[in-house]
Amino acid sequence: MVRLKGFEKLRSVDDALKTFLREAKPKVIGREKVPLNEAYGRILASDIVAEIDIPPFDKSLMDGFAVRAEDTIGASIYSPRKLKVVDKDFVGKLEAKRIWTGNPIPKGADAVVELERTRVLNGEIEVFTQVAPGRNISVKGEDIRRGEVAVKAGVRLRPQHLGLAASLGLTHLEVAKKPKTFILSTGDELVEVGEKPSEGKIIDSNRLILSSMCRELGAEPIDGGIVKDDLAEISSAIKFGVKKADMVITSGGTSVGERDLTPLAIEKLGGRVIVHGVAIRPGMPTALGLVEGKPVIALSGNPVAAIVGFELFVRPLILTLLGASREHRPLLKAKLARNVASTLGFQVFLRVKVSLTSGEFIAEPVRARGSSIISSMTGSNGYVLIPPDREGLLAGEEVLVHLFDDVGVEDCLES
Amino acid sequence: MVRLKGFEKLRSVDDALKTFLREAKPKVIGREKVPLNEAYGRILASDIVAEIDIPPFDKSLMDGFAVRAEDTIGASIYSPRKLKVVDKDFVGKLEAKRIWTGNPIPKGADAVVELERTRVLNGEIEVFTQVAPGRNISVKGEDIRRGEVAVKAGVRLRPQHLGLAASLGLTHLEVAKKPKTFILSTGDELVEVGEKPSEGKIIDSNRLILSSMCRELGAEPIDGGIVKDDLAEISSAIKFGVKKADMVITSGGTSVGERDLTPLAIEKLGGRVIVHGVAIRPGMPTALGLVEGKPVIALSGNPVAAIVGFELFVRPLILTLLGASREHRPLLKAKLARNVASTLGFQVFLRVKVSLTSGEFIAEPVRARGSSIISSMTGSNGYVLIPPDREGLLAGEEVLVHLFDDVGVEDCLES
Repeated sequence: MVRLKGFEKLRSVDDALKTFLREAKPKVIGREKVPLNEAYGRILASDIVAEIDIPPFDKSLMDGFAVRAEDTIGASIYSPRKLKVVDKDFVGKLEAKRIWTGNPIPKGADAVVELERTRVLNGEIEVFTQVAPGRNISVKGEDIRRGEVAVKAGVRLRPQHLGLAASLGLTHLEVAKKPKTFILSTGDELVEVGEKPSEGKIIDSNRLILSSMCRELGAEPIDGGIVKDDLAEISSAIKFGVKKADMVITSGGTSVGERDLTPLAIEKLGGRVIVHGVAIRPGMPTALGLVEGKPVIALSGNPVAAIVGFELFVRPLILTLLGASREHRPLLKAKLARNVASTLGFQVFLRVKVSLTSGEFIAEPVRARGSSIISSMTGSNGYVLIPPDREGLLAGEEVLVHLFDDVGVEDCLES
Repeated sequence: MVRLKGFEKLRSVDDALKTFLREAKPKVIGREKVPLNEAYGRILASDIVAEIDIPPFDKSLMDGFAVRAEDTIGASIYSPRKLKVVDKDFVGKLEAKRIWTGNPIPKGADAVVELERTRVLNGEIEVFTQVAPGRNISVKGEDIRRGEVAVKAGVRLRPQHLGLAASLGLTHLEVAKKPKTFILSTGDELVEVGEKPSEGKIIDSNRLILSSMCRELGAEPIDGGIVKDDLAEISSAIKFGVKKADMVITSGGTSVGERDLTPLAIEKLGGRVIVHGVAIRPGMPTALGLVEGKPVIALSGNPVAAIVGFELFVRPLILTLLGASREHRPLLKAKLARNVASTLGFQVFLRVKVSLTSGEFIAEPVRARGSSIISSMTGSNGYVLIPPDREGLLAGEEVLVHLFDDVGVEDCLES
């Protein structure tokens, strides 16, 4: 009789992740300087501190005339004030200078009258409105003051951050180095993408999926290939991986069968399996370990279970190695379209398709029996985590959806 | 007296976009074949039709034993059924074969008994449960059937789409070619990123922002540099741009002042200004035109107004050139944290910071007087479009937020 080791204890997702992060103590990999036009999507590694004021000078918010506010007191459409149009660096008493949006305010002036509130005569203007000092002026440093933290470290850089950095006079930014992730698949049944699988074989799509997910987050995947269901081979692949990379991600070979080899390989290498078995469906056999101090994450071989394991464990780990502020998928509240059964004691990763129908967000659960049903991922745009103390969710119930794709909109948004 | 041309008519955002798309008739640029591992984020140009079934064979969803369901009738913990363990390709009457998740179901068998519902003896097993035919089996073609459209053209390819394509035996995908966008800034006051601006000059951050926004969508920006406020120079830059690229994006020089040169340049080149002036704040002076049949989009010079113009007009245009299904920013409903004033007759692009606080989404309006306040973009994670028939929004009101960044979460999400 073959002795089959069971999972001694299933941990909750939260407990598994916290325990692992506490034991693994993952550290930020390092930082590097990149030019602004290559910094998009990278994680900012140190605060951007403004060395100048923005705007760098008092500037006009409107096309119009720079004036002394006191000269407009009492002005109205019935009682316009006449000012002399000048073209010098100084606006004196009863003078006005033509100005466009963004122009510096000339000395002497303390307000801008909008063009449409004036009438331009020969060398003069009529002003039809009274303006207060500061009117239509953006004051030096109003947007960002010198010495202020303009963007905090940990932010994923978006176009507006780059624009702000450029406005502050910067040409380069310090960003987090990309963590290297070594990705391998285990399984005698696997063939490479592009090969024609013979009877009983399947194409290994997991490496492609997991490496794309790594790139999406800003990590740099290294392909570890397909490894046979053999303890020695898996061990040497993991050993190679921890030398080459900051983290090893395997898929396959984690279920509690005779082929449960990856956790064994971690131990054989003198490493430590910190978590094996998580109360999540799909993704239950996920294992989290350490070899030579580097994380080795063993995901299930089923594509959807592997995606779930990545989402819940690898994603936060990569973000930690990047020093990223905790990033959440966009969240929304939606009404569940129909009843869904769940499993007591397990969190269930329910794939849903959210759409905006007649002003309401509706989350339609995507039917999926097995965790290998990859079309359940391509057919959904988000997921709901059903808590372990629920036997299911009810139609009409409000659920919190984590979005990984845009929301379908049935009716016109703004019209 | 200088004659100042006003905007004859401000169009609503919706009307402006529809009119422009109707006149411009933008077409998909073209398609190209790329390997799967380079297809992430690209727009699928033709449907992926399954040429095989997924799964390609009946397979097990569990670790356990493949059996004939009829042999388990009446089995229970008190009355187990004994089956002979075999290791051949066929499961006969009263036989069982060891099987792991993902394995093909051997001939003769029509169900799988989970390992934990059996006891393994010497060459035999005891089965403690009755299983129905099909139990724990994923049937050939259950996920995707041969001939079925697995992924529709127009989708932005995400990791799971690539995995699905790989599972279907594909190595390459047809994706939309990247539209080329020629991006230039106009303004005598502008200096290049990295230059030290002298008094009254400002650093041109718009090209950097707009080119990052183009890349984010999957377009390929071409840098058109800074062009002086000179009709001839602007005209020749645009002329050059429409030769080199599929679209020209300018910023600056669109307000109705003496420097309102970009729309004039479009006309000078024999092109057509289709929209000039949109009832949106900021972004009012946006102009949409055509030169030699190619879109020329003139955005305001203020960074935030340029971003708004890009979001509302360039984004849908690029998506059309890519043949992308209409993509919406992730949407959510949130409670407005405080009163906000608006302008009757204008849509207002209100920047907000959404967070999830005590289970509620709260949208905090980000203070911003001028449209040049770039920190209002870096400090927000979404926007609300205030309709033109509202003078403002009230604290506590439910608003629809378009998210461009993740949501801040104040309290623990799942615990």
